[in-house]
Amino acid sequence: MKKIAIGIDIGGTNIELAWVKPDGSIIKNLSYKTADFPQVEMFVEEIGNAIISINKELSSFEITGIGIGAPNGNYFTGSIEFAPNLKWEGKIELAKLFEQKTNLKTQLTNDANAAAFAEKLFGRAKQMKNFLVVTLGTGLGSGIFVNGEMLYGSTGFAGELGHTTAIESGRKCGCGKKGCLETYASATGIVKTAKEFLALSKVNSLITETENFEAKDIFIAAQNGDKLAFETIKYTGEILGKSLADYVALFSPEAIFLTGGLAKAHSLLIPETEKAMNKNMLKIFKETVKILPSSLIEQNAGLLGAAALVMSNI
Amino acid sequence: MKKIAIGIDIGGTNIELAWVKPDGSIIKNLSYKTADFPQVEMFVEEIGNAIISINKELSSFEITGIGIGAPNGNYFTGSIEFAPNLKWEGKIELAKLFEQKTNLKTQLTNDANAAAFAEKLFGRAKQMKNFLVVTLGTGLGSGIFVNGEMLYGSTGFAGELGHTTAIESGRKCGCGKKGCLETYASATGIVKTAKEFLALSKVNSLITETENFEAKDIFIAAQNGDKLAFETIKYTGEILGKSLADYVALFSPEAIFLTGGLAKAHSLLIPETEKAMNKNMLKIFKETVKILPSSLIEQNAGLLGAAALVMSNI
Repeated sequence: MKKIAIGIDIGGTNIELAWVKPDGSIIKNLSYKTADFPQVEMFVEEIGNAIISINKELSSFEITGIGIGAPNGNYFTGSIEFAPNLKWEGKIELAKLFEQKTNLKTQLTNDANAAAFAEKLFGRAKQMKNFLVVTLGTGLGSGIFVNGEMLYGSTGFAGELGHTTAIESGRKCGCGKKGCLETYASATGIVKTAKEFLALSKVNSLITETENFEAKDIFIAAQNGDKLAFETIKYTGEILGKSLADYVALFSPEAIFLTGGLAKAHSLLIPETEKAMNKNMLKIFKETVKILPSSLIEQNAGLLGAAALVMSNI
Repeated sequence: MKKIAIGIDIGGTNIELAWVKPDGSIIKNLSYKTADFPQVEMFVEEIGNAIISINKELSSFEITGIGIGAPNGNYFTGSIEFAPNLKWEGKIELAKLFEQKTNLKTQLTNDANAAAFAEKLFGRAKQMKNFLVVTLGTGLGSGIFVNGEMLYGSTGFAGELGHTTAIESGRKCGCGKKGCLETYASATGIVKTAKEFLALSKVNSLITETENFEAKDIFIAAQNGDKLAFETIKYTGEILGKSLADYVALFSPEAIFLTGGLAKAHSLLIPETEKAMNKNMLKIFKETVKILPSSLIEQNAGLLGAAALVMSNI
């Protein structure tokens, strides 16, 4: 009997659900709006029923389990813990709730770790034992592989690159600290930088043509030759690259993958980031690490990585 | 036949050599001055002969191999690579040279990794899977265990905590960068801090009673109630603690061990470091990690850790 796994990718806006083959191909998928589930119980009930119903359709396969990727997901406890972008408050024992509802083995990890699993199983990191996946979205998440294994640390929360200090006494971060990397290197961070640059600048910028502009508007402006937009991306790359140089000294990875919304501008952002990283890197690490875009379709990476959690037994 | 391993600990000043039982007890040991071996060939010849001769005396044991801890030692290549504190220049394939001389399996790693192995096999980290050992000597070295294994990364050089940026555009470091942690949190760094504080201060300090004072003179002065000496230690602990908070976000260790000359002042340094670490730490990591002094005699830690390299097969 052929084995398949179920992946659930929980984001602040969308929830994706898919039945995935061991080669990473998706047999069936469903999509939901996160806002439609203000209570987690509703969510487990509706998604759980969908899973039970579709599993019957797919009765020619053996379902190995459910893997979930979620913000602030903890692999050790199977819980979502105090996720700022979700309405479900406190500690949610989501893996347990799904196991009770579906009778399927369920594992959970954070969304950036799921993206790293996807890169390892289905992406460019297949042959790599040491690599970093940095997700540049609303915030900055990361999944780190060390010696061929995910880095969880003693608490399950290791790999919080986004909350290491990039700028001493810098921007105030949602975590309560100041100058965290994610306040600069994220979609939110780059918009802040652009606003700061605009406030200081006397020249016109294409960015301001869009009211309430977003990260993508900065990239479009830069691609169209806008100088301020380009300087904004350069500054972001410089801060990110400098931090990456420190992480290279710590982890000595073969590659650093940049994914997420902000990484879509990789043709502009990666060269600037790489320049700053190499400039700040110890001699012994020069030429040992490359910054790469993900080879996976972004929408699928989280889903595939989530499914991968319950695939090791396939 | 009872198995034992040989450990060699190479430092800038002394070279220690010991025959070690699996329980960490030392059967026999020898000590040399590093300066007596300006050429590495002389060193391999003399130490190799000593090993061959003493192995004959210990013929009731089976010798499993030679483990070497050395500055800039690379476990993957068995080489010492560009060690600034040794006269042996360039890349020295020391493990290979010892294998050729003694016919014993030889493995090599850097001195801080050896200290971490010692903590794992013989010290307080026996039950720990994730911990950091930070050696505060002339420089700042580190050995990091992740998932119960030493972190080497793709190059063998991972875990260079000492060369991550502590102070933006700070003190010039021997590595060519600026503001590296080891320019502050090391015996050399703390003396620099004291000199800076003395230059700015108008009050007398006990530190200046010793000409060309060293780190230990600062601790003695602080223990005797000297305010400037205490402020120096506090400043050092603040910078170290802040960096440790970032490493906790990355590695989520159970414990951070401080060893080396500077750590001897742990009764003063650890509380200040811990205070700064906790202040700068993400909420999810609070109360999950402690800073501990090593339980091993410092002279032996490097030796035992080196021997441990060839002990896994005991």
